[in-house]
Amino acid sequence: MRAKSITRVDVLAKVTGRAKYSDDLKFERMLHVKVVRSPHPHARILGINSQKAMEIPGVVAVYTAKDIPGIPGQPKERPVLAPEVVRYAGDGVALVAAETEQAAIAGAAAVEVLYQELPAVFDPEEALQPGAPVLHADSNLVCHHKVRKGDVKQGFREADIVLERELSTHRVQHVAIEPEAAVALPTLEGVTVYCPSKSPFNVRRVVAETLGITQSQVRLIQPAIGGSFGGKDYDMSVMASRAALAAKLSGRPCKMVYSREESIIEGTKRQPYKMKYKVGAKKDGRLTAMEITIIGDAGAYLSKSAMIAWRSAVEAAGPYVVPHVKTDVICAYTNNVYSDALRGFGSPQVDFASETVMDVLADELGLDPLELRRLNGLKSGSVSATGQVMEAVSLHECLDKLEEALDWKKRRVEIKEENKGTGKVKGLGLACIHRGESLGAGGEGIDTAGVTVQVQRDGSVTLYSGLSEVGQGGHTMLARVVSEILGINPQRIVVSPVDTAYVPDSGPTVASRGTVLAGNAARLAAEEVKGKLAGIAAKALGVEPEELTFADEKVFVRNDPAKMLPYEKVVALCYAKSQNAYGHGWWSAPELWWDHDKGCGKPYFSYTYGACGAEVEIDLATGKVDVLKFVAVHDVGNAMNREEVKGQIGGGVAMGIGFALMEDVKLRQGVIENTNLDEYLIPTSLDIHDIVPVIVEHPGLHGPLGARGLGEPATSIVAPAILNAIAHALGRRIYHLPADLEKVMAEIGQRKNDGFGKGAE
Amino acid sequence: MRAKSITRVDVLAKVTGRAKYSDDLKFERMLHVKVVRSPHPHARILGINSQKAMEIPGVVAVYTAKDIPGIPGQPKERPVLAPEVVRYAGDGVALVAAETEQAAIAGAAAVEVLYQELPAVFDPEEALQPGAPVLHADSNLVCHHKVRKGDVKQGFREADIVLERELSTHRVQHVAIEPEAAVALPTLEGVTVYCPSKSPFNVRRVVAETLGITQSQVRLIQPAIGGSFGGKDYDMSVMASRAALAAKLSGRPCKMVYSREESIIEGTKRQPYKMKYKVGAKKDGRLTAMEITIIGDAGAYLSKSAMIAWRSAVEAAGPYVVPHVKTDVICAYTNNVYSDALRGFGSPQVDFASETVMDVLADELGLDPLELRRLNGLKSGSVSATGQVMEAVSLHECLDKLEEALDWKKRRVEIKEENKGTGKVKGLGLACIHRGESLGAGGEGIDTAGVTVQVQRDGSVTLYSGLSEVGQGGHTMLARVVSEILGINPQRIVVSPVDTAYVPDSGPTVASRGTVLAGNAARLAAEEVKGKLAGIAAKALGVEPEELTFADEKVFVRNDPAKMLPYEKVVALCYAKSQNAYGHGWWSAPELWWDHDKGCGKPYFSYTYGACGAEVEIDLATGKVDVLKFVAVHDVGNAMNREEVKGQIGGGVAMGIGFALMEDVKLRQGVIENTNLDEYLIPTSLDIHDIVPVIVEHPGLHGPLGARGLGEPATSIVAPAILNAIAHALGRRIYHLPADLEKVMAEIGQRKNDGFGKGAE
Repeated sequence: MRAKSITRVDVLAKVTGRAKYSDDLKFERMLHVKVVRSPHPHARILGINSQKAMEIPGVVAVYTAKDIPGIPGQPKERPVLAPEVVRYAGDGVALVAAETEQAAIAGAAAVEVLYQELPAVFDPEEALQPGAPVLHADSNLVCHHKVRKGDVKQGFREADIVLERELSTHRVQHVAIEPEAAVALPTLEGVTVYCPSKSPFNVRRVVAETLGITQSQVRLIQPAIGGSFGGKDYDMSVMASRAALAAKLSGRPCKMVYSREESIIEGTKRQPYKMKYKVGAKKDGRLTAMEITIIGDAGAYLSKSAMIAWRSAVEAAGPYVVPHVKTDVICAYTNNVYSDALRGFGSPQVDFASETVMDVLADELGLDPLELRRLNGLKSGSVSATGQVMEAVSLHECLDKLEEALDWKKRRVEIKEENKGTGKVKGLGLACIHRGESLGAGGEGIDTAGVTVQVQRDGSVTLYSGLSEVGQGGHTMLARVVSEILGINPQRIVVSPVDTAYVPDSGPTVASRGTVLAGNAARLAAEEVKGKLAGIAAKALGVEPEELTFADEKVFVRNDPAKMLPYEKVVALCYAKSQNAYGHGWWSAPELWWDHDKGCGKPYFSYTYGACGAEVEIDLATGKVDVLKFVAVHDVGNAMNREEVKGQIGGGVAMGIGFALMEDVKLRQGVIENTNLDEYLIPTSLDIHDIVPVIVEHPGLHGPLGARGLGEPATSIVAPAILNAIAHALGRRIYHLPADLEKVMAEIGQRKNDGFGKGAE
Repeated sequence: MRAKSITRVDVLAKVTGRAKYSDDLKFERMLHVKVVRSPHPHARILGINSQKAMEIPGVVAVYTAKDIPGIPGQPKERPVLAPEVVRYAGDGVALVAAETEQAAIAGAAAVEVLYQELPAVFDPEEALQPGAPVLHADSNLVCHHKVRKGDVKQGFREADIVLERELSTHRVQHVAIEPEAAVALPTLEGVTVYCPSKSPFNVRRVVAETLGITQSQVRLIQPAIGGSFGGKDYDMSVMASRAALAAKLSGRPCKMVYSREESIIEGTKRQPYKMKYKVGAKKDGRLTAMEITIIGDAGAYLSKSAMIAWRSAVEAAGPYVVPHVKTDVICAYTNNVYSDALRGFGSPQVDFASETVMDVLADELGLDPLELRRLNGLKSGSVSATGQVMEAVSLHECLDKLEEALDWKKRRVEIKEENKGTGKVKGLGLACIHRGESLGAGGEGIDTAGVTVQVQRDGSVTLYSGLSEVGQGGHTMLARVVSEILGINPQRIVVSPVDTAYVPDSGPTVASRGTVLAGNAARLAAEEVKGKLAGIAAKALGVEPEELTFADEKVFVRNDPAKMLPYEKVVALCYAKSQNAYGHGWWSAPELWWDHDKGCGKPYFSYTYGACGAEVEIDLATGKVDVLKFVAVHDVGNAMNREEVKGQIGGGVAMGIGFALMEDVKLRQGVIENTNLDEYLIPTSLDIHDIVPVIVEHPGLHGPLGARGLGEPATSIVAPAILNAIAHALGRRIYHLPADLEKVMAEIGQRKNDGFGKGAE
């Protein structure tokens, strides 16, 4: 009965190229705005001279922080324009508005800024030392999150084996196809901003604060969005505020579009982590203790780094039953480009670490890595590292499916025999995950979503929400939920654009929360409408509303299906009776708690589970790693749209391959060296081979129709699966991401020293 | 405490000229569309040849009814383009889309249409005779509405005096400052239309039917609106559908703007009525019976003529206790331009008649016209002509205020003495009204309204509704209601534009229903939010929500005002607790009933009352009538905004002066002869003298904060007050509107025959 795949609501616009992105928007008398950025990672602004810039034909105005009517930013957040001090090489100090983009570029180059360079710090550990240059207030400490369970000393005493490893993850970025762009139009009392954002209400707040007006006086409308992946949030707040500032001050529409270089120089990155894992286990593999110390680099500004670090702390011990856990995650400010959410939000870093040490442990104990995970994996009723009793756990189901899809045991053996004499080696590795859904108890933002559904007189439906459609298919998911509950064709439903003049604040599209939060709100909205229609249909049919079923565009009596009314007829009756065919759903995450000092609590209301396996082939001459096959098993609770689920898994794997093997923002004294895609490498289609998505549907606790989120799990354990496969292939292990050509070649070199490769390879 | 006047929410945009009207909108590649109209009142289309038009440079396409993918119109409604037969001189037969407006005009002139003329009928009585040309189906009868109370024969037997008069009203039109305009943009699945309309959801429905798509696939956005007065409804449905048709077929944005001539030729008019009133009364003035027969001219198409005629039937006997009533209102199709709502919706016609015959009765009996109305006027508990027991009746209060403001009795005498020897005569007249609020039991549309209120994190408020802001200040009224209930500054509230992608269907802005219907919905929405905030504030203050008062931007304990929280703090708490600060109000009119066959029922849930007095001066040499002073007393229940109330009264009086003295659409064989404002005269500022608005605030039964509607009462009894004043001045009476120069001069001539004017005049 259930259509398991429905057409994406935005597919036609996108495949025909008719979807309008921010850069497609043009308005009469529109100015182009460019940013003057600091080349220094830390400096005091002594003066700004705009005279030469103003002499360039077409340049209309130069604006600095002094022109901001409101505030340039909240404390510790990146300012819209730096008023006194720049804290990273990319901080904006002035805007140039011009008749053409070329004139704006020339104008920005001609603005003279006099800086007094200040001592800078680029390493988070150094940043926390006494005497280090301090970026904000009196300390560079962003946060210190703890998890405590049992007594790790006791745990290590009980262990037969204790191993310690140091690992690190690196700085990568979103690289959405569409770079940041915003167009602002001055209105009489405020401003209208068109921009892509996953967090429209946060962006609106920052714009209002910048201009010193109310939030309702700022209208934010979302055009089509060319990808987000955690970006286009605080980045976009700054950009939208700049465009709005220029629009208000000039009285003209103002467009800003970042080039790829600008996007890379200025845009937020995934937090680099240095991690120490100490793991104790019994001979049979049973974990006894984990002690984890992580230090993260927040970069120059706060954004969501503290929240991200908190998630890392919660998830650092992996999806395992560990009797004794001590985790510390510390984040510090540095004069590097600042960090923010990036698909995974603190998970990919710790997942890489926990899944690597699990494989090391298996190696050390001579156990099968999959069996080791089975032995220790969370089950329903297990107590997590934070003391939470876990429910609806599907980790073992995921492991079973992975084993089957990979033919794990057989393939682990036979793969080693293949390619002999080809100069290549193959390996098979895996990783698994538990991941909290939505913002969790550590979230400072609201964890709520609202959806409004209006059934029109002809039975067609208008639906709107604050949920951003960032390419993930969120709007299609909402349409699916409503169509299923009302038993109608999804083609009846039109999803209206996100526009803060109308839609409720549904929080950000982060933390894989869209499906659960907004999906539930859509369910509630549709159920409200259904209840109203059921009351009307029941009266007309002479039954009780509870006896009715809505399906196949009909409302019928469950035990007497011949007694029915067409859906359209019920809607017509509803309108004829002046009834309200309007439903508003508002869903708040269940109550959670977190004891920051004791390091325990109920951090998330539900979790997703998954297990991935990678088969890699390594060219021993070049170090090139090819992921020949990647099996990704994810429990999505209820696949709202199978094709979308597959697509989201495919995208997540591709991003994970980039994180594992090539992407790396290279900083030298705080300055990014690889500012375009010729040097910052991302996977291309030639890097993607066989991706096998395996969908598990173990209903979640709170998701609409049992659905669970997928956006971030899809990418979070790709890197460890690949790195474990590389270790399996090479017999040597890389602990520091990415496993790029140089690192792989270095291990190949070491491997020869170890005596490998003397055979037929 | 209560701010009785707040600034209009749209005032700044309008006074600075920055409000964008439909004609201000421009889009890339936009085409201009013009209409080819029938010059014949009734004809069959034999062929349309677009060849010559297509040869004109810039002409892109010619579309006819054959190109319509959906249906050209519902039966009896004006088609978007006539498929076979044209029924009035103005019916559209083709559209010409061109790169420029000039090319479109030239193209429209070059389209050749071959017509076979058909017999036509222009008089509604003739139209109902056997053998008359029939416009739709098998009869020209639009409707026959009856009101029956008691036994008129008995009533006339009981009368001491019975008088009979024939009266008529004429065809006038809306003449909004902004003529009709629409811009349509093709979208992938549908169309977006920008157009001014008082009935956005009706317009959307017709566009969807024309294009054969769902209502949700049509998005209708309202720019600023330059006046409606009952227009921009079905007229706009046709225009928007034409623009949408051209946009979908051409794949380009399409703009249509009517010139004043096009607006006059094509636009709907107020129904002309021929009325026979037979009135019986006792010597002391007590009414015993009224027998009323009205025939109305619907013109060529249906639109709302049947609903309008029903209101006329209900109100025809005036605001009086009449023991025996027999009213028949019949409407017929003719080949004249068709009729639709025009400020008053059937009231101005019958108000003119009932208030004229009341003055005639007073003259015949030698009674004071005001006292005659006091004697017979409705009071709370009176039974109306339809059998309804009236509640919250304030007619006598209005008459008292009018008497006082005019110094009626003294002025009626002394006025006759003034101007002696100046060649001018003065007179003082009055009229009063009861008028049903909203659509009533005869309404076929839904009589409901929805308003959504969202309190944002900073305490500012977004408000939206399907209520059109047509210049009446409706959006300001909504802001006022919400600000009063939440006890906040109205400047916090931003009213979002009407956009059918988001707002609930709130029905049309007709029947003076905006304040009562949408105002109540706003009240409910605000109360929902208030309830949520009260719950949070009560918890924080340790009291019960019922103990709290919201005022002056604070929430405080009523009996201990020192115990308080600032409003903004309560909002912040609400968000911190992930509570929903979203309120949706939906208000349906109370249940009503109407027995069509028996001619009785409860037609309206409440009524407005008013009384007006005019002091006129007539130039005996030219017939020019000047309304030197006009006192307008209206019970608005609660003046939501005193300045707006005064403004609406002023506008209503001006329109009434036009109706009374000069406006008149002149038709010759169905063809309009005065197609621009040089010949169709409307009042200018030189025609407007002293207007004295008097506001009565007798709380209504159902209005928000006791408010009652005002839009239509403000104009409905202007004409009879003026005509009664003219009669008082001349001693002769005009029964057929308008009292233009010719008619006044004719009476002045007759008056001389009667022996007047031999004195000092």
